[in-house]
Amino acid sequence: MDLFNKYEFIGCESDFQEATVVLFGAPYDGTSSFRPGSRFASSRIRIDSYALETYSPYLDRDIEDHKIHDAGDLNLAFGNRDLVLKTIKEFTAGIVKENKKPFMIGGEHLVTLPAFEAVLEKHKDLVVFHFDAHTDLREDYMGEKYSHATVIKNIWDIIGDGRIYQFGIRSGLKNEFQWAAEGHTFLEKFSFTQLEKIVNSVKDKPVYVTIDLDILDPSIFPGTGTPEPGGISFNDMMKIISTLSTLNIVGADVVELSPDYDPTGVSTAVASKIIREMMLIL
Amino acid sequence: MDLFNKYEFIGCESDFQEATVVLFGAPYDGTSSFRPGSRFASSRIRIDSYALETYSPYLDRDIEDHKIHDAGDLNLAFGNRDLVLKTIKEFTAGIVKENKKPFMIGGEHLVTLPAFEAVLEKHKDLVVFHFDAHTDLREDYMGEKYSHATVIKNIWDIIGDGRIYQFGIRSGLKNEFQWAAEGHTFLEKFSFTQLEKIVNSVKDKPVYVTIDLDILDPSIFPGTGTPEPGGISFNDMMKIISTLSTLNIVGADVVELSPDYDPTGVSTAVASKIIREMMLIL
Amino acid sequence: MDLFNKYEFIGCESDFQEATVVLFGAPYDGTSSFRPGSRFASSRIRIDSYALETYSPYLDRDIEDHKIHDAGDLNLAFGNRDLVLKTIKEFTAGIVKENKKPFMIGGEHLVTLPAFEAVLEKHKDLVVFHFDAHTDLREDYMGEKYSHATVIKNIWDIIGDGRIYQFGIRSGLKNEFQWAAEGHTFLEKFSFTQLEKIVNSVKDKPVYVTIDLDILDPSIFPGTGTPEPGGISFNDMMKIISTLSTLNIVGADVVELSPDYDPTGVSTAVASKIIREMMLIL
Amino acid sequence: MDLFNKYEFIGCESDFQEATVVLFGAPYDGTSSFRPGSRFASSRIRIDSYALETYSPYLDRDIEDHKIHDAGDLNLAFGNRDLVLKTIKEFTAGIVKENKKPFMIGGEHLVTLPAFEAVLEKHKDLVVFHFDAHTDLREDYMGEKYSHATVIKNIWDIIGDGRIYQFGIRSGLKNEFQWAAEGHTFLEKFSFTQLEKIVNSVKDKPVYVTIDLDILDPSIFPGTGTPEPGGISFNDMMKIISTLSTLNIVGADVVELSPDYDPTGVSTAVASKIIREMMLIL
Amino acid sequence: MDLFNKYEFIGCESDFQEATVVLFGAPYDGTSSFRPGSRFASSRIRIDSYALETYSPYLDRDIEDHKIHDAGDLNLAFGNRDLVLKTIKEFTAGIVKENKKPFMIGGEHLVTLPAFEAVLEKHKDLVVFHFDAHTDLREDYMGEKYSHATVIKNIWDIIGDGRIYQFGIRSGLKNEFQWAAEGHTFLEKFSFTQLEKIVNSVKDKPVYVTIDLDILDPSIFPGTGTPEPGGISFNDMMKIISTLSTLNIVGADVVELSPDYDPTGVSTAVASKIIREMMLIL
Amino acid sequence: MDLFNKYEFIGCESDFQEATVVLFGAPYDGTSSFRPGSRFASSRIRIDSYALETYSPYLDRDIEDHKIHDAGDLNLAFGNRDLVLKTIKEFTAGIVKENKKPFMIGGEHLVTLPAFEAVLEKHKDLVVFHFDAHTDLREDYMGEKYSHATVIKNIWDIIGDGRIYQFGIRSGLKNEFQWAAEGHTFLEKFSFTQLEKIVNSVKDKPVYVTIDLDILDPSIFPGTGTPEPGGISFNDMMKIISTLSTLNIVGADVVELSPDYDPTGVSTAVASKIIREMMLIL
Repeated sequence: MDLFNKYEFIGCESDFQEATVVLFGAPYDGTSSFRPGSRFASSRIRIDSYALETYSPYLDRDIEDHKIHDAGDLNLAFGNRDLVLKTIKEFTAGIVKENKKPFMIGGEHLVTLPAFEAVLEKHKDLVVFHFDAHTDLREDYMGEKYSHATVIKNIWDIIGDGRIYQFGIRSGLKNEFQWAAEGHTFLEKFSFTQLEKIVNSVKDKPVYVTIDLDILDPSIFPGTGTPEPGGISFNDMMKIISTLSTLNIVGADVVELSPDYDPTGVSTAVASKIIREMMLIL
Repeated sequence: MDLFNKYEFIGCESDFQEATVVLFGAPYDGTSSFRPGSRFASSRIRIDSYALETYSPYLDRDIEDHKIHDAGDLNLAFGNRDLVLKTIKEFTAGIVKENKKPFMIGGEHLVTLPAFEAVLEKHKDLVVFHFDAHTDLREDYMGEKYSHATVIKNIWDIIGDGRIYQFGIRSGLKNEFQWAAEGHTFLEKFSFTQLEKIVNSVKDKPVYVTIDLDILDPSIFPGTGTPEPGGISFNDMMKIISTLSTLNIVGADVVELSPDYDPTGVSTAVASKIIREMMLIL
Repeated sequence: MDLFNKYEFIGCESDFQEATVVLFGAPYDGTSSFRPGSRFASSRIRIDSYALETYSPYLDRDIEDHKIHDAGDLNLAFGNRDLVLKTIKEFTAGIVKENKKPFMIGGEHLVTLPAFEAVLEKHKDLVVFHFDAHTDLREDYMGEKYSHATVIKNIWDIIGDGRIYQFGIRSGLKNEFQWAAEGHTFLEKFSFTQLEKIVNSVKDKPVYVTIDLDILDPSIFPGTGTPEPGGISFNDMMKIISTLSTLNIVGADVVELSPDYDPTGVSTAVASKIIREMMLIL
Repeated sequence: MDLFNKYEFIGCESDFQEATVVLFGAPYDGTSSFRPGSRFASSRIRIDSYALETYSPYLDRDIEDHKIHDAGDLNLAFGNRDLVLKTIKEFTAGIVKENKKPFMIGGEHLVTLPAFEAVLEKHKDLVVFHFDAHTDLREDYMGEKYSHATVIKNIWDIIGDGRIYQFGIRSGLKNEFQWAAEGHTFLEKFSFTQLEKIVNSVKDKPVYVTIDLDILDPSIFPGTGTPEPGGISFNDMMKIISTLSTLNIVGADVVELSPDYDPTGVSTAVASKIIREMMLIL
Repeated sequence: MDLFNKYEFIGCESDFQEATVVLFGAPYDGTSSFRPGSRFASSRIRIDSYALETYSPYLDRDIEDHKIHDAGDLNLAFGNRDLVLKTIKEFTAGIVKENKKPFMIGGEHLVTLPAFEAVLEKHKDLVVFHFDAHTDLREDYMGEKYSHATVIKNIWDIIGDGRIYQFGIRSGLKNEFQWAAEGHTFLEKFSFTQLEKIVNSVKDKPVYVTIDLDILDPSIFPGTGTPEPGGISFNDMMKIISTLSTLNIVGADVVELSPDYDPTGVSTAVASKIIREMMLIL
Repeated sequence: MDLFNKYEFIGCESDFQEATVVLFGAPYDGTSSFRPGSRFASSRIRIDSYALETYSPYLDRDIEDHKIHDAGDLNLAFGNRDLVLKTIKEFTAGIVKENKKPFMIGGEHLVTLPAFEAVLEKHKDLVVFHFDAHTDLREDYMGEKYSHATVIKNIWDIIGDGRIYQFGIRSGLKNEFQWAAEGHTFLEKFSFTQLEKIVNSVKDKPVYVTIDLDILDPSIFPGTGTPEPGGISFNDMMKIISTLSTLNIVGADVVELSPDYDPTGVSTAVASKIIREMMLIL
């Protein structure tokens, strides 16, 4: 008898050993400063992924032709940020150690830091492509060094100038934009016109891609912590992923879906399709 | 590493062989005449069941002390009612054959018919306890003999007078109430004052219990196809389940949660807790 | 071919001439001080009334056995309160003149004033039964004499002491409660324990019944302008209507459903059923 | 006295005899595989159509200058797909027989099949313009030949190669795209750049236009069964309709609005405006 | 101890005396003909404005570098339109008299009339830039001269031909478009291609800018009284504001956010950001 | 000119010095294990409190006759639980030191711990009345000692046996109920029948009252983190408050409103009214 009893993203039915990519959820939203709820992203995405096809007409590839393992969601200790970060780092390290690529579904943006750190341990010359509405370059947020609003600055603290590329940015403090403009990161406001050129320039390097889904316009992605009008379209995002497909991506994440803020379910559908496309270029 | 990757109702982690109760979903809502969407009930209930405790302070029992297998959801052919009914009947029969008790999550109320039929094949003197806002005694609905609005009449067509007990009924055609009053079924309007007496009178018989959740007042259960104000409270339902606990229940179902019509999530929480309690008395 | 193309409350298919009761909508919410939207009540109620049965198991009566005409909704000039009041009064007068009983669906509570006035012209000794969470006895509201918060005081200005009976009241200014307690109206706080006694005492008088649906607890009726927790249950309301059924009711209204504030649709179902029951006792 | 008591799309007040176009609803959603609820589309559209103007500044035409009859909604037997299809076909045939043009509001996409068949009986060389996010070219869906996911394939089974033109398609199985690419249908992925050329090439033929509203991006049309990000804009749709206006359209439909999934009401407003524009070019 | 206890738009913390711009709310929606609720716009905007940054990367300016006083909301008498208009006019006059610029948050569009009148008294050669989906040029609406649907015509009645510039208009009666086309106003349908040219031509004049937010496409701005698909994007609005920045704007308003119709909160975020940008060019 | 520009609970307009009660918000929800969002409770309550009257017909008292200061909300460092707890404790201590009574609006239940500790420093023999659906007696939650699920156990760790009284409890681990039953706390399941007796027995002691609003049935209070059907009614809560009114309450809190999960706004109205009543008995 044909039964549905799976808790996996559609098509991600490989076991850990045979997989080349390992998908997992990091349902933590403890430093969200406006609307929380990104903790529900990964479980909602799995359920709604069954409204997707496994075939992408954008890339002409099919998830069923890839070997992806969906490990499920990490059990994270709400309220204990430091332990959460440690747990994510260790789990990601376990994937990297087996020469597989980690693909994480957030959660809020702070979860990128420990995943990045785990990947960096293997790939010392790792560069970061960061797609977001927000700079995330604060030194601290209400006194806290580790926050969704500081995560890219935290990464810079580790790898320094010239290795972080930011696109789509349209909100931040004046001094964050100024600091980036001093050359610490490459930051393109509003759009991604320089993406192709930069992709071509780093083709030989290992790349970590972090997509804060609020880079999208809230018309198509309202279900997020801090919606910022003026974002890119879904088709823009398809172009970005196509452009990234020539890179040597060794780790990636998609963060900041807060599904309960979009009763239409569209935000979850958008996240699911972006995850499908991203997995197809890994 | 501690991971969450389950698609089971909380605590229902036995495998099929060791289980005494088999939980499954029948996500069909093809004959719903007003608001569809009960197809989403079982998957939503599983997700939200993790906000429950496994322990019931009502019954002082714990799900973890029982052997329950959650089989997942049947894959049902939308649009082909007859095949849907056949699929449910066969699956239920497979459970009954192994001397396990089937516990079905609907879907709409028509799914009760095939599950009941499968149980009846084993238990020839089966009686039915029916909790509902609606009579469900129509001869046909818009010309259709098999419908959520005819399901109890369909069952009566098979087992006849004196074996169906209906409680909480507060909506129907005048002639449905009259037909019941002629003695074809026992029908208590609005409430369940006669339940205990009847329970005592059928203690030696095998019983099928079908709970249309719209017996509850829509204040506590708005997420259903046809909300009918004037229903019983959640605590009333706890009393009903306690009263039923002395019966020899050999099959049961809980139907008509349509979760998308309750954005607060309360209806799903109500359904989940009723399912927990019902499983604890099986 | 069987087509659905009606704009009437279910079962109200008599034409004006043969009808004994005329139902109409007064979609005005211009003085609502908190949440507007009662303008949408009557059209939403008509649509959703088709999820009701025409038969009431509470009263054992059927709408199809009564002669009720649904006239549709008045076209009211938004922004011009005085013209709105005049339009409602004239339309109601036209019903009364033909010896039919008006039954109005609001709109906010101010619409009761002109309907009451039209009925009073025919029935000089009219008394008023008022069911509500709020006193509605202010002298003025932000300087305005004609407002949803002053409507019962406006009626008192016309008919004076001893002819207004208020039930279920649980919100108001201290001085409104004091003024009522001086004997200007009969006012029962929170409940309706004195209803039966009063009904018996006015049996020979013509009665106007106005039901502000916010008398109901917001658990069962959240879709209203100013929800006030602590109200009566739907079954309480069924008892009230049953008690009222021996009166000589010559006009009635049901007001303050604001359907867009209840995405579950339950508030509209509640209003529809109360309207069905009220029409069955007219 | 000015009353509103209509159940027609705004401006569609002709009677059947004088009309050149007959609008009707087919509220069936029995084969929807993800989110049902398109059964509510036609009644919601009628109500909300009164927020539209009858005049189109896009086409500089006014609905009041056209003769359109709104017949209301078909009463369809939920649960009995085959009878539903038969009912729609017969009703459409009755319109065609009187030399009027049918304009159907779905419901889900399967309702197109019987309407198309009825029109085809009169216009043997009928061609089909299909606007959709989905291929709808499956041979079967979960074993079912008649489904919203197979409807265009069902039409092809009748009329064969070279007579179906598909635009905006962005989701389907790999083998559906391949099958179309073999020349069975003209299929343009994502967009409609070839529309004008094709319109010019079939100007002498009778045309049936079927618009699955999910061709629109879910940013502007979230209220649908299976939202697919990456669709066309509303202004694109206006361009499509303008381009189609030179064709000899003899029948049309607009399907897959599921209004309860868009609490903002925008999806219904979009559908209403597209229907107004389509009727103005018939 | 650091406390949040403010009721001001973020960054608008100047007192009245030092301010050059005075922000205030006019929470009136009494003539809204479809969906009311714009009364809640200003209070919701203030709350959600704290999810904004004070710095605009579009204009490279920061609200904290400007002197803006947020006066709060006018207490307006619901139900008494004429008194509401008088109150707004007097309050605006008080701002203008002190040589400060009024910036009003509606409310519905009728509130523009009294604010405009107050500004006109000081600036006799005032011209009006009007951004909207709707013509607002009716002579009357259901008999009422003062309505959200007549407001621009009301202004024209005062200042006559050649001083009103309308952009983005995509809905209205045929005769409204014709009347504008006779030269009474400049009216650009759908878009704003002529804006820059006109801005250059009136650079020496005092300007009143009124933005009905429904000029935006409802994909990004669903929370409004009458959503009209086919509008401009948020980035278009940013371009408009940038183009307007060279004008001598002496008063402005932003109207028709009805926040309860957008449960995602995006409409409020859009309104807040537009208000920030507009204040930065005043 | 009459303006509304306040950020205070209605009627709480005393300044700090003259006040006897100080109201403040603690918008922290960092350890919520299911649905977050109680951070928005206090700001939403303030806004919606203006739909309340200041007069209570339950207690026949008026808030305007009391001296209450609303201090606003604490700025709490999301992500840093320990600092949050410290901040709340220090702020509460500042109130207590001035011989005023603290009244805190949560936030989740963990915020009770530091407020309680600050009050305990002054009132060494403090006892606790705890109203809740949940035991909150876990030793730890996912390894964390400080959590909303452990807060009462944390308090017990400080004050020990015989000083904590729990009512309405209907969810918890089996061993939590057992531990309480060993005499560590007084715990009444489901209801509050022993409340009056206990109130009489502690009349001479200083009391801290903590109300987790999920003690209410989710029919009337759906907007909370973990809705538990089977709770008490709003009128039950009014009886509880009336019973508590003879106590020497020296500090209190109301926690766990998560307003975004109740789109009807009723949960916020319920919380506001309970806060009004509680302040009237302090």
